Amino acid sequence: MKEELICPHCGRPVSRYRNPFLTVDIVIELENKGLVLIQRAKEPYGWALPGGFVDYGESLEEAVQREAREETSLDVELTGQLGAYSAPDRDPRHHTVTVVFVARARGEPRAADDAREVGVFAEGNLPSPLAFDHGRILADYFAWKKRM
Amino acid sequence: MKEELICPHCGRPVSRYRNPFLTVDIVIELENKGLVLIQRAKEPYGWALPGGFVDYGESLEEAVQREAREETSLDVELTGQLGAYSAPDRDPRHHTVTVVFVARARGEPRAADDAREVGVFAEGNLPSPLAFDHGRILADYFAWKKRM
Repeated sequence: MKEELICPHCGRPVSRYRNPFLTVDIVIELENKGLVLIQRAKEPYGWALPGGFVDYGESLEEAVQREAREETSLDVELTGQLGAYSAPDRDPRHHTVTVVFVARARGEPRAADDAREVGVFAEGNLPSPLAFDHGRILADYFAWKKRM
Repeated sequence: MKEELICPHCGRPVSRYRNPFLTVDIVIELENKGLVLIQRAKEPYGWALPGGFVDYGESLEEAVQREAREETSLDVELTGQLGAYSAPDRDPRHHTVTVVFVARARGEPRAADDAREVGVFAEGNLPSPLAFDHGRILADYFAWKKRM
């Protein structure tokens, strides 16, 4: 599929191959405390897994480390991949495909960047509303933990 | 990271946010026979898992079905996700991130589209050379099967 950009100099269309945007999201297990979620500072509002866009030239694992640090101030240790989620309507703004990682961390999370607030939650007390398909991702995570 | 395209009308640069390209690859288990690999018709040459670029607005699962049909003429039934692979140098042409699915199929594969030839192989007789990081992906697949 092609995407049409508008040339800012002459106003005419520039066509380019269009791929979904690639993101990572991170289930951060905070030692003895629960899961780290952020309250989004931008639309769509709500609570969400920390995460964000993957840069060209950056591995998914590097993007995970960077986004965790930017949004929660935590250094995370990756422990696995939960899976990729790609329904075209999972983000109301545009088509994003996310690869979800599981990681662990210790210390005190502090909100920064796109995160307005940060909180630590357990399965029984998840905040609401959860943005995107993060409710489904968290349900998959808890089911996966029980199978381990 | 920004990417600069050249406007074909006025020749001046148009800047755009740059993401890695997103692809899918498919480990197709052909009933009672082995795994379906293709010999690539384009550079980089070699044998590879069937797969290709994900279109904007298409889920990963839809891309898997489409690419399997285009390259091997098989209708596949998805059985799981093996994982995502994202090292920036895994494709010599540009940075691609692939999500690898496992699927099963029956019938006779026929090469088409980007596939010059199609073959069915078992763990002990994989063809050479394997393009991209598909040797590593196949090693991960065989290790995963043994854990099941």
